[in-house]
Amino acid sequence: MIILGIDPGYAIVGVGVIDYTGNKFKTIAYDAITTHASAPMPQRLYSICEKLDAYIEKYKPDAVAVEELFFNSNQKTAISVAQARGAIIVSVVRKGIQLYEYTPLQIKQAVTGYGRADKTQIQQMVKMLLNLNAVPKPDDVADALAVAICHAHSNTLDMRLGINKM
Amino acid sequence: MIILGIDPGYAIVGVGVIDYTGNKFKTIAYDAITTHASAPMPQRLYSICEKLDAYIEKYKPDAVAVEELFFNSNQKTAISVAQARGAIIVSVVRKGIQLYEYTPLQIKQAVTGYGRADKTQIQQMVKMLLNLNAVPKPDDVADALAVAICHAHSNTLDMRLGINKM
Repeated sequence: MIILGIDPGYAIVGVGVIDYTGNKFKTIAYDAITTHASAPMPQRLYSICEKLDAYIEKYKPDAVAVEELFFNSNQKTAISVAQARGAIIVSVVRKGIQLYEYTPLQIKQAVTGYGRADKTQIQQMVKMLLNLNAVPKPDDVADALAVAICHAHSNTLDMRLGINKM
Repeated sequence: MIILGIDPGYAIVGVGVIDYTGNKFKTIAYDAITTHASAPMPQRLYSICEKLDAYIEKYKPDAVAVEELFFNSNQKTAISVAQARGAIIVSVVRKGIQLYEYTPLQIKQAVTGYGRADKTQIQQMVKMLLNLNAVPKPDDVADALAVAICHAHSNTLDMRLGINKM
């Protein structure tokens, strides 16, 4: 199963594609989609969706996993990230691909088995599980791979239990 | 000039189409795009964009005007509305239509000439300027028509001053 993980944002969108077959992970690609701070927001959002469309066409994922937003800080940033997330979600649904959402807690638990794991612990697990030489940078890319891993684990469990998530 | 005004939301999206030619307003159509609270959020966002696409294809606006988000209350609602707004924005840009954003203050000033106008005053001006028998309901629809009127006024001024907004 090819899984595309996405860490939403408006300046940087982390994307990571993995294959999870027979309990084995294979890393296919990962990247950061970036936009220019000087561009108007509608253009930045459109540019993200255009690049994401191309990424989906190239890697043809069976499922897309996106992190849920959790905010308690700057509301202006929260709104901008949420706008990007909405645009990303509709781009995925337009492509007819199943989309799954996971909370930060679900991702931590699925990747490290521990709900209070910190960022570094998650990144080290991503590196280990995907057999990478180094933690992917920037953090957004590691986060995208983490949500893809989370879906691989959760989805396998769902299939065993016969649960249909959407 | 055909202008589509949009009041973004995830449960109700107000849409209003007006023609503004030679300083005269003509109301073409207005409606509320609604989504079911029971549907998963990705489906609600997609359904909004699908209906909006059909609306744009039907009325072929020359410009789309959308209200900027301004929040100080519930952050969860803010994030959901922002997600819908992002999805809506990219749907418009995908169609190749010029998109303009206005703050609530700009809309108040453009519609009533007064930055501290209240909701009722704005709605009465919308009814009067567009020669309607009653204030359109729900509020989201009146707000969509207000942002369309705001663009008509602002854009006319821009053209006089030779300003290109995007």
